[in-house]
Amino acid sequence: MQKFILAATAVTALAIALPAAAQFQKPEDAVKYRQSSMFVIGQHFGRVGAMVQGKAPYDAAAAAANIEVVASMAKLPFAGFVEGTSSTEKGKSKADIWTKRAKFDEGAKAMQDAMVKLVAASKANNLDTLKPAFGDVGKTCKGCHDDFRNQ
Amino acid sequence: MQKFILAATAVTALAIALPAAAQFQKPEDAVKYRQSSMFVIGQHFGRVGAMVQGKAPYDAAAAAANIEVVASMAKLPFAGFVEGTSSTEKGKSKADIWTKRAKFDEGAKAMQDAMVKLVAASKANNLDTLKPAFGDVGKTCKGCHDDFRNQ
Repeated sequence: MQKFILAATAVTALAIALPAAAQFQKPEDAVKYRQSSMFVIGQHFGRVGAMVQGKAPYDAAAAAANIEVVASMAKLPFAGFVEGTSSTEKGKSKADIWTKRAKFDEGAKAMQDAMVKLVAASKANNLDTLKPAFGDVGKTCKGCHDDFRNQ
Repeated sequence: MQKFILAATAVTALAIALPAAAQFQKPEDAVKYRQSSMFVIGQHFGRVGAMVQGKAPYDAAAAAANIEVVASMAKLPFAGFVEGTSSTEKGKSKADIWTKRAKFDEGAKAMQDAMVKLVAASKANNLDTLKPAFGDVGKTCKGCHDDFRNQ
């Protein structure tokens, strides 16, 4: 429980502090930043996904450690979706991100809210507790990817 | 002080848990993982560097928030330097990383030790306290980059 509080605090602290701290020297850095942070998050989230899907043995400590990394980084990518970086994008971001920003931000918040619950679930040392919380975060990822990411 | 303890705890927790959790589906993922995590770290560290060097106004809260991100990610890249990924490297890693691994790991540990002190210093809300602690971490970065990274 103590750890859950810490992680939740960290997520909140980043939410408050990062918008002001987010400064990129050039637009390409913002693009690379969001792609890089998303990739690292995806690696750690995917390791837990393998456990949830039965493709890897459930290791409670590893699952919790991976979710801790994901949660601590969950706010980072969004600072990289700065205005004017759609045309410099070599990746998959749709221009809709900037024309439907409120919906995009809402999706980001839904993910972060689900993430707080997943951090708690990952500490329960129980795969049956982890699974639905993992699924809930996964749905929020998919929701935004379906709407705002080219396949 | 409370925050410093939390950050130090998080760093330690990652140190213990991640080697077992570090699994990459293919060598290229390990390369991309270390490059991505280093890039994100570099962005946040660089923002504090600009303050330390007087190129940006000192913002104590932003500095502490950025250092918190750096500290929480400080262990991540090293999990990506897995055996056999030198030849797949499109970046700057020297093969010496794998032939002089003990020295490389020692450098990583020196960075992480200096990072714990920097987290504390960043909470002091005092640029003169931040500067030397920032410089000490920077030296450990440069030490490994000089030895193990192609320019």
